[in-house]
Amino acid sequence: MELGNYLFQRHGYHGTSLSMILEVCAVSRGSFYNYFGGKEAFAIEVIEHYQALEMDLWREEFNRAQGTHAEKLRAMMVRLIEDFSDEHERIGCLLANLSGELALASPAFRRAIHNAIQRVIDAIRDDLSICQREGSVRTDLPATTLAHLLWDYWQGALLRMKVEDSRQPLYEAVELLWQQILPPHRCQRAAQTPSEGATAQ
Amino acid sequence: MELGNYLFQRHGYHGTSLSMILEVCAVSRGSFYNYFGGKEAFAIEVIEHYQALEMDLWREEFNRAQGTHAEKLRAMMVRLIEDFSDEHERIGCLLANLSGELALASPAFRRAIHNAIQRVIDAIRDDLSICQREGSVRTDLPATTLAHLLWDYWQGALLRMKVEDSRQPLYEAVELLWQQILPPHRCQRAAQTPSEGATAQ
Repeated sequence: MELGNYLFQRHGYHGTSLSMILEVCAVSRGSFYNYFGGKEAFAIEVIEHYQALEMDLWREEFNRAQGTHAEKLRAMMVRLIEDFSDEHERIGCLLANLSGELALASPAFRRAIHNAIQRVIDAIRDDLSICQREGSVRTDLPATTLAHLLWDYWQGALLRMKVEDSRQPLYEAVELLWQQILPPHRCQRAAQTPSEGATAQ
Repeated sequence: MELGNYLFQRHGYHGTSLSMILEVCAVSRGSFYNYFGGKEAFAIEVIEHYQALEMDLWREEFNRAQGTHAEKLRAMMVRLIEDFSDEHERIGCLLANLSGELALASPAFRRAIHNAIQRVIDAIRDDLSICQREGSVRTDLPATTLAHLLWDYWQGALLRMKVEDSRQPLYEAVELLWQQILPPHRCQRAAQTPSEGATAQ
C-alpha cells in the first residue's frame, strides 16, 4: 500500500504502469490480479488505506496540540506545510494530484476520489463548527461553505507550491485564512448586526 | 498548436506521447524534431501560444463588458464558468492541469508554466488595483496578495469541479470572493482605520 501510494504520488495515476507496481511491490502479475483485480481497484484501495491512516494520524496530533480549537487547526496546517520541507515530498497530497487526472477516470475511480475528499471536507466542517461555537470563526457563513473555501483555497495553494517550488503560497494561505477570512468580522464582534449597530448609536 | 493544446488538456503532459502528437498533427517524426526539437519544447510553445490567445480574448471580452471594473471582473468569471458547460470541456484550464504534473518536470518546463501563471496573476493584480482605486475592493491587503488568493482559490475550485463533476464549486467561489472576501469591510467603509476609528470618536 505504502509503495503504491509512493508510486501514485510520484507518477500520478496514468503515469504509473502496472509493471511499475509489480516491480516495486515485488509481486507477480497473476497474484496481483487475483488479489486486486486490476490497477484501478488497487488505486482505490491505496486511496482508502492512505486516507484512513492520514486521518487517524491527523486526529491524534490534533488532540495533542494546545490552545483553542482554532489555534489547534491553524497549528496543524502550519505543521502540514513543514512536512513539505523535504524537496522530494513537495508533490502535494495524493488527492490533489489524482483530482487533476480525473478527466479520463472511470466512474468507480472518480467516486473513490470524491468520497475521500468529501470525508476530509466533512472533518474540516466539523472542526470549523466547533470553532464557530467557541467564537473564533465567523458565524455569518455556514461551516460547510467555509470548509469548501478552506479546502479549495488550500488545494490551489498546493498547486502553486509545486509551480513556484516554494512553500510561500501555503504560508500565505494559512495567514489569510486565519487573519482575514475565517475570524469573525471586527464589526461582527462589536455588534451582531453591524448595519443595525450604526443606527443604534 | 490547437491540437497540441487539446491533447495536453485531455491527457496531461505525461499522458501525451510523442506518437499521439505526430498522429494528431499528421506530421513526421523527422520534421517534428526539426521544427520543435522535442516534446518538451513543443509543450512550452503550446503553453505560450495558448496563453497569449486566451489573454487577448479575455481582454477583448472584458472591454466589451458593462459596469464598474469589479462588476466586469465578476461577470467575466461567471462567463468562464459557463464555458465549462460542455461536459467534454470540463477538464479545467491547461495551466491547472499541467501544474499538477510538475513533480517530475524539467526546469525549462517548470519555468514555462511558472511564467504563464505569473502573467495571469499579474493581470489579476492589475485589475484588482483598479478595483481598489474605484472603491469596490478592500484596500487593507495589497492587490498582489488578493490576486494570489483569487488565483489559488479558483484553481482549487476547478479541481473540485472535476471531482464533483459540477460547476457548483466555481459558482460558490465567485459568490464568496465578490460578496465576502474582496469587497471593503463594512467597518472599513465606515471608517478607513476601524481600530483607530473607535478611539477617535
